Amino acid sequence: MQPLARVEQALERALAPAMGPGAPPLLAQALHYAVFPSGHRIRPNLVLAVAHACGDPDPESSDAAAVAFELLHCASLVHDDMPAFDNADLRRGKTSVHMQFGEPIALLTGDALIVMAFETLANAFAIRRERLPALLSIVARSVGAPTGIVAGQAWECEAAVPLSDYQRAKTGALFVGATQAGALTAGFDPEPWAALGASIGEAYQVADDLRDVLCDVEELGKPIGQDARRLRPNAAAQLGVGGAKARLRELVDAAVKSIPDCPGAEELRVLIKAQTMQFFPKQLALVAA
Amino acid sequence: MQPLARVEQALERALAPAMGPGAPPLLAQALHYAVFPSGHRIRPNLVLAVAHACGDPDPESSDAAAVAFELLHCASLVHDDMPAFDNADLRRGKTSVHMQFGEPIALLTGDALIVMAFETLANAFAIRRERLPALLSIVARSVGAPTGIVAGQAWECEAAVPLSDYQRAKTGALFVGATQAGALTAGFDPEPWAALGASIGEAYQVADDLRDVLCDVEELGKPIGQDARRLRPNAAAQLGVGGAKARLRELVDAAVKSIPDCPGAEELRVLIKAQTMQFFPKQLALVAA
Repeated sequence: MQPLARVEQALERALAPAMGPGAPPLLAQALHYAVFPSGHRIRPNLVLAVAHACGDPDPESSDAAAVAFELLHCASLVHDDMPAFDNADLRRGKTSVHMQFGEPIALLTGDALIVMAFETLANAFAIRRERLPALLSIVARSVGAPTGIVAGQAWECEAAVPLSDYQRAKTGALFVGATQAGALTAGFDPEPWAALGASIGEAYQVADDLRDVLCDVEELGKPIGQDARRLRPNAAAQLGVGGAKARLRELVDAAVKSIPDCPGAEELRVLIKAQTMQFFPKQLALVAA
Repeated sequence: MQPLARVEQALERALAPAMGPGAPPLLAQALHYAVFPSGHRIRPNLVLAVAHACGDPDPESSDAAAVAFELLHCASLVHDDMPAFDNADLRRGKTSVHMQFGEPIALLTGDALIVMAFETLANAFAIRRERLPALLSIVARSVGAPTGIVAGQAWECEAAVPLSDYQRAKTGALFVGATQAGALTAGFDPEPWAALGASIGEAYQVADDLRDVLCDVEELGKPIGQDARRLRPNAAAQLGVGGAKARLRELVDAAVKSIPDCPGAEELRVLIKAQTMQFFPKQLALVAA
């Protein structure tokens, strides 16, 4: 099965109990709405790609890890879109969850997705107990305080923001966790895989920062994007567009070079190179190719 | 060590990593503020009381379970107090988290506490792996959708509310989970302990409903409380004050009678009787004594 279809089917299975009889109907609808239709599914595909490179001897457990990372990512999008943060009306081309279902349901949808992520791991690892504590630690570190996406978002509430802590937590942590989880589910030591996730995460952040600036250059005729309006740190604003492009190129190279020895290392190198290109802004894909 | 001191110390240990160097300062402060100083700690004490009755052979694991339930309870209070729900200014006699730190930090505080609960279990059960999947399932069922407190809160967003589903999820689920977790950490089958948690949870809900109605009778001269203003189901409004008192008495008896056979059953019966009396409104403690 193709990784994308695997992820979609595993997500449907994970959501099913919360959609069944006895569930509050609005929350059930909102949970499905928050997870489907597909975004890029970059994080779960990264879990599966690393697991595949390591032999993927146990697809049920790599599926569960992939699902957990996507559910946690979706939870963060739902909460980040709320009026307390970005007050965003649109997400993945449709009305954001709080605009569609109201703020109370949006708040609960994020909470329920976080819990569901951990429940999915518990269910899948009931017969693979020896790896569960390490996997839970990886997931919790990726999401919670002081190093995960919740902490990253909290840096936006501070007057003084250490840029590297902010970006590592807000974007990098979930990528690091995804690569480590993929390795762990295949029985490999997760630690050597952190560098791959960190490089991809930082590349993703720089690409996102560049897109934020470049889109405005093209569309508004001035290099001031969302980050500038919200006073958020932006690598392209700090390094200049040229400097950010150079950094991006470095990070893609670093990601590819960091892949630890494993049965499918060569295939993974090709895949990572292709995928990192894919999520860059169009202008940059040409430059970085 | 007395159970209360055990819970406080275990909570401090669980929070420490999120308060250390590298943590976003406001979030770190808000996490501590949301958990300390103590509320009644009814749920973690219930975990420890059941574990104690079952011999508590492994206090580190019962501590972790107690901490997880209290952190999840605190998370639900922080999110429930927010403007999307109760818009409450005060909690445990001090300013609520969103009033003190703002809505963005309050939202993140709840999220971080949920993740921290699961992380605490992962850490404590790294050397007790065989019980971790079952314990995670118990905790996730108590908190998530479709049966946990998140689902209970979501029933408040529905036009038609099945009263028993609502109360079982919003209040009962965490009590059921607490008794089951206490038994599991001591190596006992958790299922027979569900009835104790369900009875205590329903008693707590009825007592709370009665307090809501009775306080207004005394203070405002009319039997219309918060629940009536918010159109929430209230047992005292549905059964009448007399009917609710009778129901409460039944539930305390049912709780005491439901305690499964275990080394400390008699001591636990006395404790449960005393504790259920303690969290009732003063007027009712006299009536039910």
